[in-house]
Amino acid sequence: MLLHMPNRVFVIDTSLFVNPHARGHFGKSPTAAVKAFLKIIAKMNIELFIPPSVFNEMKNFIEKKTTDELELHIKKRAPNMYSIYLPAAVLYDFIDDIRTRINKGMRLAEEFAKDNHPDNDIKLGKLREKYRDAMRTGIIDSKEDVELVLLTKELDATLISSDEGVLKFASEIGCTYLNAEKFHALLKKIKKAKN
Amino acid sequence: MLLHMPNRVFVIDTSLFVNPHARGHFGKSPTAAVKAFLKIIAKMNIELFIPPSVFNEMKNFIEKKTTDELELHIKKRAPNMYSIYLPAAVLYDFIDDIRTRINKGMRLAEEFAKDNHPDNDIKLGKLREKYRDAMRTGIIDSKEDVELVLLTKELDATLISSDEGVLKFASEIGCTYLNAEKFHALLKKIKKAKN
Repeated sequence: MLLHMPNRVFVIDTSLFVNPHARGHFGKSPTAAVKAFLKIIAKMNIELFIPPSVFNEMKNFIEKKTTDELELHIKKRAPNMYSIYLPAAVLYDFIDDIRTRINKGMRLAEEFAKDNHPDNDIKLGKLREKYRDAMRTGIIDSKEDVELVLLTKELDATLISSDEGVLKFASEIGCTYLNAEKFHALLKKIKKAKN
Repeated sequence: MLLHMPNRVFVIDTSLFVNPHARGHFGKSPTAAVKAFLKIIAKMNIELFIPPSVFNEMKNFIEKKTTDELELHIKKRAPNMYSIYLPAAVLYDFIDDIRTRINKGMRLAEEFAKDNHPDNDIKLGKLREKYRDAMRTGIIDSKEDVELVLLTKELDATLISSDEGVLKFASEIGCTYLNAEKFHALLKKIKKAKN
């Protein structure tokens, strides 16, 4: 790429429409955000991809009629998991991170097992929140997350997500990415330029 | 390798001397096992490697005099983490496995938080054991584990371990390996053959 111009191939994540901050400029609900998004990208010279697993995830948040329409404007494609190679250091760092988190999860479980307070929903809600935060915030923690990043790498595209763990992993393996919050502004900019 | 003969380059894991089943043929204690091992390999035409991190781990179980002697017969070497590449599928499967384990750990934590029995050491011991089993049995869960397998790959050696997770990962990325329990017999066999 010799010219200073935005990449026009994007891989998008559920968080673009589900995370309230990310969808802010598009719409109030996930469905409204997708509708507005479809209007903006109409006739734009860009290419959009999504891993099938992530598209299925998205369907849980958006009305069927709207995902049916979205499906016509976005290419579903899974990364070729066996043709992409990653430096072993990626797995090494990941396992080190997981080990630290497992120990944190253990300490949390002990803390709640010891407190001897009556079992109640508030207590269990708190345990769940703390545990999830310790184990899953800031790392890739699902197959969908891995697929997003690897598809972006395979296509040499730009990843659009607001998931901290997904963006961190994308950065680690040298993918172009943009926080989903800024995607609306980028689309406007591309639209202004010659299509 | 054209001839049907055993590989003579080995990467060894702490479990060879620490796991009672694995060290059985060598000796009753880790220290006794290393001493017997050193006698067997004396003048044998084999090459032994160990990642420095694993050697440090081993020092916790074996008397200093004996590890000092072992250090003269085994090469400490770390894998070159940045020159080895793994198929992305390895990370993908690993993350899927971790996700399942995290959910199991969560259910365990809830179960123990809800039981309302007085806090006592037996209860906490049970929680720790169940949690460790759910989170860590059968997967690589430490930097040392990764180093063992990657060094084996880099050297095209045979990995000697009795750790289930280590052996599984070695198999996944196409390393030669042997359960540590059988290493004594293999050494005897090599010794019988011409050196």
